[in-house]
Amino acid sequence: ARPRVGYFFTGKTGSELLTEKLKKFKVQEYQSIPIVVEEDVSVYDAICTMFLEDVGTLFVVDNKSLLLGVLSRKDLLRASIGNQDLNSIPVHIIMTRMPNITVCRKDDLLLDAAQKLIDKQIDGLPIVKDVDEGLEVTGRITKTNMTKALVELGRDEHL
Amino acid sequence: ARPRVGYFFTGKTGSELLTEKLKKFKVQEYQSIPIVVEEDVSVYDAICTMFLEDVGTLFVVDNKSLLLGVLSRKDLLRASIGNQDLNSIPVHIIMTRMPNITVCRKDDLLLDAAQKLIDKQIDGLPIVKDVDEGLEVTGRITKTNMTKALVELGRDEHL
Repeated sequence: ARPRVGYFFTGKTGSELLTEKLKKFKVQEYQSIPIVVEEDVSVYDAICTMFLEDVGTLFVVDNKSLLLGVLSRKDLLRASIGNQDLNSIPVHIIMTRMPNITVCRKDDLLLDAAQKLIDKQIDGLPIVKDVDEGLEVTGRITKTNMTKALVELGRDEHL
Repeated sequence: ARPRVGYFFTGKTGSELLTEKLKKFKVQEYQSIPIVVEEDVSVYDAICTMFLEDVGTLFVVDNKSLLLGVLSRKDLLRASIGNQDLNSIPVHIIMTRMPNITVCRKDDLLLDAAQKLIDKQIDGLPIVKDVDEGLEVTGRITKTNMTKALVELGRDEHL
């Protein structure tokens, strides 16, 4: 005897269905555009870029958009309290550089990316594409995107 | 004819159940402890506190733990690129001050706090308790807490 409504009774509880739904979300669906700088840009200019673009993480790339490094607000804040001339220090001196960068790919599960943010205690990850010469930066996924995903889930807006 | 399993068929879809579950989460269940400084602390010392405690938001309080202001990494970064002596500027000069602070309370819904973080484009909110003299700071809720909530939902660990 199946209830006469437009869907099946699956024998699953709501939380099982929740898990399945959430487990399918991909990084791609929640990503933001990446904000990048070149490695010879000064720390001062990188900070200005961070404010102008209103982001918490910048990616340092070469002229082929290949990932060279990452700059967090923390990295820039640390540099700015050293008594140095921020205009004369290029970002490649202070950035976190490859291969010490945690990345993700657009088809990765959102939850796996969220777990990386928690485990590594960072605010954002570069989304990369594997190319012959290295990793091309194609996007950015951050704790802001995760917060938005949570809100959308709560409103049941995700299709 | 009700299926012979240990729960009722409610006629609700999985996403309705999801919404109900998530909508019940309270700020209190996901909060972190607040990291506070007094208003006469220097910007330099506040930045050091931020690094030592590894947080993105500091709350400025008086000697009764009443909320006076908020300091974000962005606020401190902005101050640090001005050509000023960070040791001689007290944080009350640069902080966002009451009543321009978005707050929440421990019994607020997690989703409402998440929405405030998105709307105000900030990383964290003070959790406050209303007392006669003002707002006492009792906790902190951030995009990191929201990211952890999302991961726990995905693993169905929330009871």
